[in-house]
Amino acid sequence: MEAIHDTAMRVLEEIGVAFLNPEAVAILKHAGCRVDGEIVYMGRDFVMEMLSHAPEQWTITPRNPDRKITVGGNHILFGNVSSPPNYWDMEIDRKIPGTRQYYANFLRLSQYYNCIHFIGGYSVEPVDLHPSTRHLDALFDKLTLTDKAPHAYSLGPERIEDGMEMVRIAAGISHEEFDATPRMFTNINSTSPLKHDWPMLDGWMRMARRGQGLLVSPFTLAGAMAPVTMVGAVAQSLAEGLSAIALAQYINPGVPCAFGTFTSNVDMKTGAPAFGTPEYMRATQITGQMCRYYKLPMRSSGACAANVPDGQAMWETSNSLWAGVQSGSHIIYHAAGWLEGGLIASPEKFVMDCEVLSQILRYFEPVLWRTDPGDLAYEAMDEVRHNGHFFGIQHTQDRYETAFWQPSLSDWKNFEGWQAQGGVWTAERAHLLYKRILEDYEEPPMDPDIRAELTEFVERRRAEGGAPTDF
Amino acid sequence: MEAIHDTAMRVLEEIGVAFLNPEAVAILKHAGCRVDGEIVYMGRDFVMEMLSHAPEQWTITPRNPDRKITVGGNHILFGNVSSPPNYWDMEIDRKIPGTRQYYANFLRLSQYYNCIHFIGGYSVEPVDLHPSTRHLDALFDKLTLTDKAPHAYSLGPERIEDGMEMVRIAAGISHEEFDATPRMFTNINSTSPLKHDWPMLDGWMRMARRGQGLLVSPFTLAGAMAPVTMVGAVAQSLAEGLSAIALAQYINPGVPCAFGTFTSNVDMKTGAPAFGTPEYMRATQITGQMCRYYKLPMRSSGACAANVPDGQAMWETSNSLWAGVQSGSHIIYHAAGWLEGGLIASPEKFVMDCEVLSQILRYFEPVLWRTDPGDLAYEAMDEVRHNGHFFGIQHTQDRYETAFWQPSLSDWKNFEGWQAQGGVWTAERAHLLYKRILEDYEEPPMDPDIRAELTEFVERRRAEGGAPTDF
Repeated sequence: MEAIHDTAMRVLEEIGVAFLNPEAVAILKHAGCRVDGEIVYMGRDFVMEMLSHAPEQWTITPRNPDRKITVGGNHILFGNVSSPPNYWDMEIDRKIPGTRQYYANFLRLSQYYNCIHFIGGYSVEPVDLHPSTRHLDALFDKLTLTDKAPHAYSLGPERIEDGMEMVRIAAGISHEEFDATPRMFTNINSTSPLKHDWPMLDGWMRMARRGQGLLVSPFTLAGAMAPVTMVGAVAQSLAEGLSAIALAQYINPGVPCAFGTFTSNVDMKTGAPAFGTPEYMRATQITGQMCRYYKLPMRSSGACAANVPDGQAMWETSNSLWAGVQSGSHIIYHAAGWLEGGLIASPEKFVMDCEVLSQILRYFEPVLWRTDPGDLAYEAMDEVRHNGHFFGIQHTQDRYETAFWQPSLSDWKNFEGWQAQGGVWTAERAHLLYKRILEDYEEPPMDPDIRAELTEFVERRRAEGGAPTDF
Repeated sequence: MEAIHDTAMRVLEEIGVAFLNPEAVAILKHAGCRVDGEIVYMGRDFVMEMLSHAPEQWTITPRNPDRKITVGGNHILFGNVSSPPNYWDMEIDRKIPGTRQYYANFLRLSQYYNCIHFIGGYSVEPVDLHPSTRHLDALFDKLTLTDKAPHAYSLGPERIEDGMEMVRIAAGISHEEFDATPRMFTNINSTSPLKHDWPMLDGWMRMARRGQGLLVSPFTLAGAMAPVTMVGAVAQSLAEGLSAIALAQYINPGVPCAFGTFTSNVDMKTGAPAFGTPEYMRATQITGQMCRYYKLPMRSSGACAANVPDGQAMWETSNSLWAGVQSGSHIIYHAAGWLEGGLIASPEKFVMDCEVLSQILRYFEPVLWRTDPGDLAYEAMDEVRHNGHFFGIQHTQDRYETAFWQPSLSDWKNFEGWQAQGGVWTAERAHLLYKRILEDYEEPPMDPDIRAELTEFVERRRAEGGAPTDF
């Protein structure tokens, strides 16, 4: 850990990070960093002092305060797949551009599943909405169809300011109440190697000033935009991410931040990105050690390279998710619905992933026998002895309803029973299940006055032209 | 751990274990155990003294000494699925009884894959072979089509004696050499709750006397033949397994043993067994702690309830396998090819599982940067800085060939590339791959004289009638 830390610090001190945002450069220069054009060199003392302000644990309180989440400590939070431009489902069986309708369906699925704790970026990009006002309609849908902790994109001033204002309106709170505690979060990606772009830095700084949740996730593909070795790629990702966190902490000491890992490798024969590989898992877990070293909450992802929700999709995603939770990650992004390296969102994959997520959450529940010695079951064994079975005894009757995780998509019938019901493979069952969920979905309640205010805001901003689309 | 240990010991002392084998009962009575008919009560002092003789680490040397394996320590060993009565592949698309031909194909797959370290029980039961002589033909195939560490079934005296003799002949060694170090292994299952049957105990004791590898794996389904709580089910499995190990150690102190977990849960609505669930994972890991407590090598399994090699099959199997290796298991049985709770063997599932196994093995390789500081990649980052990429630089060129795990079944192409090649889902790709492997398979060399001696033995024993089939 010391060697990786030292490497990251040397990179910050001697190679520097490009901040393609003059305001950010000016702030860091004011903070005492050496600056050469866009390149900012940060001393390790400065970085570590800034990191010392970052809280180890923080909360996000969405419009429904019962959905408040805690980032850090022993908490594990899962969110929907974010930002694929394309959509695939079994009925369409083609890769097609995302639409508002598909996007809204993913919001409904995200609201429905208890194992989804926060609403990340757009599960699929609603490309039928004009880019200048897409964020307004998409956030309107997010804030009305769900009541969980919301994300807004840091893509320049208008989008993030609109996002913060809409989250505030949806929660029915004052500006002071909004600023007092995190109500939402954003996520930025560095432009590896060692560069932060203008619009993301702009949103980052605006969110920092208002004390909202900040995630930075360098996309460091080893062998492409990062060193071919996983420890080298992690060191680079740390330099990139910690430099953004240092900036946020200088602007607003104590602002809640988390470090996101998105370090994977490429296929060296083709350059294709890979996910859920042994290298991906190891990079995630190395990063977990480093986040504990820096006392920062951590983000990782559920990811795969597979193009359809088949066996490969599930072994790659299982690898990603287990590495994520076992690395000590607090926030697992893209935990449901991801295909094709993040280029496709699929509702079948979404419900398949949720089946895995609910198992992971169950796995991490405390082992109850610490509090109930009856669970050691000596008396039960003494009752059944050598020739009985445990189905009918009181010890079983007292516990069977909660003893085991209950599946919602898995089929545990034997082959004949499964065949008698049509012999349906998992992805097809998932197709039927997601449609049933959409039929059963109920919109979370929202005060009509608040809804009207939100609608009015969207219409006003639409009339004003929304946000520029030229970057 | 102390509470689980104490529960297991109380079960052994006060409830006792039924040994349905008069010879075993007599031996244990001679050892000082209290005996009441078939029930043997073992004091914890006796059990712990017997366990103190069991080695923490041992080897199996098959006919090809280069394939020698070490059981225990930091070694992880994978084996093929064992004992399904039925076969399924995508072309047949039905569940059909196993045959010698299918069985031999699984042997070829097991020989082919480097991630398969030992040959367990029959990957599919060759039911076209007569039960009285099936073991002779099946072992002949195993010993000629593979040269990895072999298993033989403990099903009464004839089968296990034939098995030992055939392994000895195949290795071209004397009886003394055979007895000097383990050349093979067996696995017995208790008849839960708290019972060992006659034929398995018979084979167990014969193998113990000749110093061969012994695995005992209680099949303790929580809520059915074991308590509904996982700690209770683990405690029962320990009582069952440790009682067999104590017997073996009394017969031949120091004989190599391993404890196998096969604790899972049932669906409490239907009674159907489940595998790869959160409860399965936790039971496996609790058992891992207990095996370290007893200083015994451990066996676990790759298992699933799914009926076909789809998404569910892979998330359940991934859960099983990761829980297995992370519990500290040394031997992972059923690691490739298992479907339908062990009732079906599938060649597609076999090659899909091997893709996961090779990733697990890669994941556990040492992190090289401990020995090569260049892996920290400071100089590489200094060379590329803020605008380049790492593809072409020397640091990458020096490492790219071994930097990342290489897939053999995974498709990492993007959707369009994948579609252009037919849009083939994982299970279908696995179908094509297993057929290609069978075409490429090469039989490991065997001395013609040894092969003749083996054939002669099989024919003589066939003429003698083989083994009884009335139990």
